[in-house]
Amino acid sequence: MTAPYTLILLRHGNSTWNQANLFTGWVDVRLSEQGEAEAARAGELLAESGLLPDVLHTSVLTRAIQTANIALDKADRAWIDVRRSWRLNERHYGALQGLDKAETLEKYGPEQFQLWRRSFDVPPPVLADDAEYSQVGDPRYANLSDEQMPRTECLKDVIERMLPYWESDITVDLRAGKTVLVTAHGNSLRALVKHLDGISDDDIAELNIPTGIPLVYKLGEDLMPLGPGEYLDPEAAAAGAAAVAAQGKK
Amino acid sequence: MTAPYTLILLRHGNSTWNQANLFTGWVDVRLSEQGEAEAARAGELLAESGLLPDVLHTSVLTRAIQTANIALDKADRAWIDVRRSWRLNERHYGALQGLDKAETLEKYGPEQFQLWRRSFDVPPPVLADDAEYSQVGDPRYANLSDEQMPRTECLKDVIERMLPYWESDITVDLRAGKTVLVTAHGNSLRALVKHLDGISDDDIAELNIPTGIPLVYKLGEDLMPLGPGEYLDPEAAAAGAAAVAAQGKK
Repeated sequence: MTAPYTLILLRHGNSTWNQANLFTGWVDVRLSEQGEAEAARAGELLAESGLLPDVLHTSVLTRAIQTANIALDKADRAWIDVRRSWRLNERHYGALQGLDKAETLEKYGPEQFQLWRRSFDVPPPVLADDAEYSQVGDPRYANLSDEQMPRTECLKDVIERMLPYWESDITVDLRAGKTVLVTAHGNSLRALVKHLDGISDDDIAELNIPTGIPLVYKLGEDLMPLGPGEYLDPEAAAAGAAAVAAQGKK
Repeated sequence: MTAPYTLILLRHGNSTWNQANLFTGWVDVRLSEQGEAEAARAGELLAESGLLPDVLHTSVLTRAIQTANIALDKADRAWIDVRRSWRLNERHYGALQGLDKAETLEKYGPEQFQLWRRSFDVPPPVLADDAEYSQVGDPRYANLSDEQMPRTECLKDVIERMLPYWESDITVDLRAGKTVLVTAHGNSLRALVKHLDGISDDDIAELNIPTGIPLVYKLGEDLMPLGPGEYLDPEAAAAGAAAVAAQGKK
């Protein structure tokens, strides 16, 4: 097959912990009712656009899987091939996992808070393996080496564990001419968009990806974008990105 | 990995067309509310039994996919690997697809009716490619050759297209030591059970697999059962099998 290749990115809908304003990371929370509605809307947008995925790549977190299942079911594509990888997971939020965002902002101040949320290479404090919200021992990560298993991550870390999957798995489906849907998370998708759009380490802090709105890229032979990514509902995407940027301010 | 290997078979829950008493075959109908409840119960049975699948194989029909998604979600295993194949589809019911079972029984008589439903090698009449309930042209079958694409099938045909997938894909996961869940259909599962239990062409007519109840096999090194398959809820399974046998008699 030859270019252009079609890549669709979809951030999972609102989760119960988004709703409760808690840092989530690798904690396996479910979609809220609002999130389920967002996923269904994403499926309608896919169906209306005629951009129908041939293969799905998801993280191993339930909220991304739920989003994909609902959206694909809505677009009558529940039957497509599925591949999952922990490498598409949300950023591991370290010791912040389970903490209230507004309380954390108040306790540590806006500078530290923004550093943890958006700095490129400063991870939050490490989460202890015996902490309530640690994922060490979760069977879905049984195949990870101890070194691969994160206890905290900055965006740089996410890029380092996500890009190998892009190279080894996602691009293979793209080159086979398949329309690829990647259903993942705020930070794993920011990592991918940073790569695709060549965004600098400094500028990536400003990029916010809204939940539940498919973002479509047409890629050339080099698997880099032929133009800017386009949201299937640009108006809702702009409002959604602003909402993400305002997070923490309860 | 070494034996015993664990194989779990699950027939999809009640569909809207089961409920309406119509021949379904490859028509892509959805689960009824009852079917969704059965799928959730199947997931509870899996969780209670501690038999947790590592990998899922489904047909490409929505009712099997819905069943798997609901059951695995309930068992907190939504994240496992997924493989799909048309080879696990229900038997193609030919020109009977979309017909009312009770009307068909009345029109053709009990002998012909039972022949179509349960004979080993007599398929129903062929379904025309331009018929309302034909699947010719459905994008999920785009990779099938014209010869592979069925227009009607008897159980013998199902065995001939299902067993290659058992050999090429399912047994590979079993040999890797994975607990395998196969979520499929009355006749594709009858085909598999016929193979596993060495049931004769004559006796298979009497085998009925109930919906929504996991059936567990322990397999030896030769990937044949070490003992009889066991339903996780034997009482409900017996009642369910009797209900399947009574179908058509509205």
